[in-house]
Amino acid sequence: MISSTSNKQVKYVNSLLKKAKARREEDLFVAEGLRICREIPKERICAIYMSESFAGQASADIFRGIAHTELVTDEVFRALSDTQTPQGILALVKQSHYSPEDMMPDAGKPALILAIERLQDPGNLGTIIRAGEGAGVTGILMDRETADIYNPKVIRATMGSVFRVPFIYADDWKQSVLSLKSQGVRVFAAHLKGSADYDDVDYTGPSAFLIGNEAVGLTEEAASLADVRLKIPMLGRVESLNAAVASSVLMFEAARQRRRKA
Amino acid sequence: MISSTSNKQVKYVNSLLKKAKARREEDLFVAEGLRICREIPKERICAIYMSESFAGQASADIFRGIAHTELVTDEVFRALSDTQTPQGILALVKQSHYSPEDMMPDAGKPALILAIERLQDPGNLGTIIRAGEGAGVTGILMDRETADIYNPKVIRATMGSVFRVPFIYADDWKQSVLSLKSQGVRVFAAHLKGSADYDDVDYTGPSAFLIGNEAVGLTEEAASLADVRLKIPMLGRVESLNAAVASSVLMFEAARQRRRKA
Repeated sequence: MISSTSNKQVKYVNSLLKKAKARREEDLFVAEGLRICREIPKERICAIYMSESFAGQASADIFRGIAHTELVTDEVFRALSDTQTPQGILALVKQSHYSPEDMMPDAGKPALILAIERLQDPGNLGTIIRAGEGAGVTGILMDRETADIYNPKVIRATMGSVFRVPFIYADDWKQSVLSLKSQGVRVFAAHLKGSADYDDVDYTGPSAFLIGNEAVGLTEEAASLADVRLKIPMLGRVESLNAAVASSVLMFEAARQRRRKA
Repeated sequence: MISSTSNKQVKYVNSLLKKAKARREEDLFVAEGLRICREIPKERICAIYMSESFAGQASADIFRGIAHTELVTDEVFRALSDTQTPQGILALVKQSHYSPEDMMPDAGKPALILAIERLQDPGNLGTIIRAGEGAGVTGILMDRETADIYNPKVIRATMGSVFRVPFIYADDWKQSVLSLKSQGVRVFAAHLKGSADYDDVDYTGPSAFLIGNEAVGLTEEAASLADVRLKIPMLGRVESLNAAVASSVLMFEAARQRRRKA
């Protein structure tokens, strides 16, 4: 049992929680909390840390038999945790490595891709991934300026979807979008000055939605990649929607159309 | 110019930022940042605080002529602010007092009401109000266990919609929902075990959506008030959506139907 907060494993876990660079170098990330830890495919778990209190509960049973399990005092767990009221369970998890092909579904099923540019807020990114899985998104393509998907706030907000939806950080995001187009994917930009109402467009074929930064939207260069610029008609004096809300309205419209066509 | 952080006005603003009780007693709240301060109806501004740096900018011009304007040093402004990188402008604003009738639109237009139970997260609440205005919501009915709409995080997330969408905290929320029903409003519960797909239901008449707590959804007692329980069909292994996302998918489906019918 680890009983000192100066134990080097505590420092290691903390560096994985706080630093994207450390996560990348170690090819690991931290998933915290019972609900999310339950969702991790077993073969991807590198280590489990549980507090004494948690280990005494029935919920701990599903983690028995995992080779590298460390018991820590409740005080040490608080030092390991990214949350204010820790549940007492976290896992070190191997990062995923998808290829662009993983975003393309089996023959006969149309792709539904979110291509995200410069999205900054971890909560927004996690919420989008969770909603995306629910709407049937087949892949998420992000540029290097988008928040780190392995940030603990993103992981938490995905509620486990991060383990199931394929995603890629593209070094050349625009080239990757063009590559989707060359594979027959129609590209739609969510844009305040869109020319088409989002619900007047057909998304039953292979489709990708371009989603931009919370404050300034898509860069003009990114928007110019789109086949169609979409707008979500707005009442009142609202100029724009929260990025996760706008993405979800588009994705669930695509899901709705696909369900009706099926 | 206020140059000391121990000035009693600094303490006063801080109590309004931090305490719902202080806000209620003073019938005031704090709106911070240029974008949101611009949206405040002038007659509701009680006082403006601006930092020396902000006062030197052209953006400050629109706030000239407001009777009670206090200039403070940049250091004092940091002590007044709820944000990490303050812009240097905040307002004390009179609270709104709507009556249930304010949620009902003019004759010929159908009501679209969000009835929120026990929603906890201020960011979610603010995002819902912002999306609600965009979707044409005519009123927001909340129970006393829902987050305080005047929490600075809510205000920020609304992006100004809080000044335009009528809202009420009901002492007897269930009774208020029943009162809506007696006025011909159909009531729909967002529910994981809903019997109707949300996009199979007509929202072109007077409608209200019941939205519950982030973690546990609506109480059974609340859900039992609904005419129809709705589900948003979900792919993958997603069990539920973020509350702001689920609300937005429903509200924009209502907006879509109403636009098509018009």
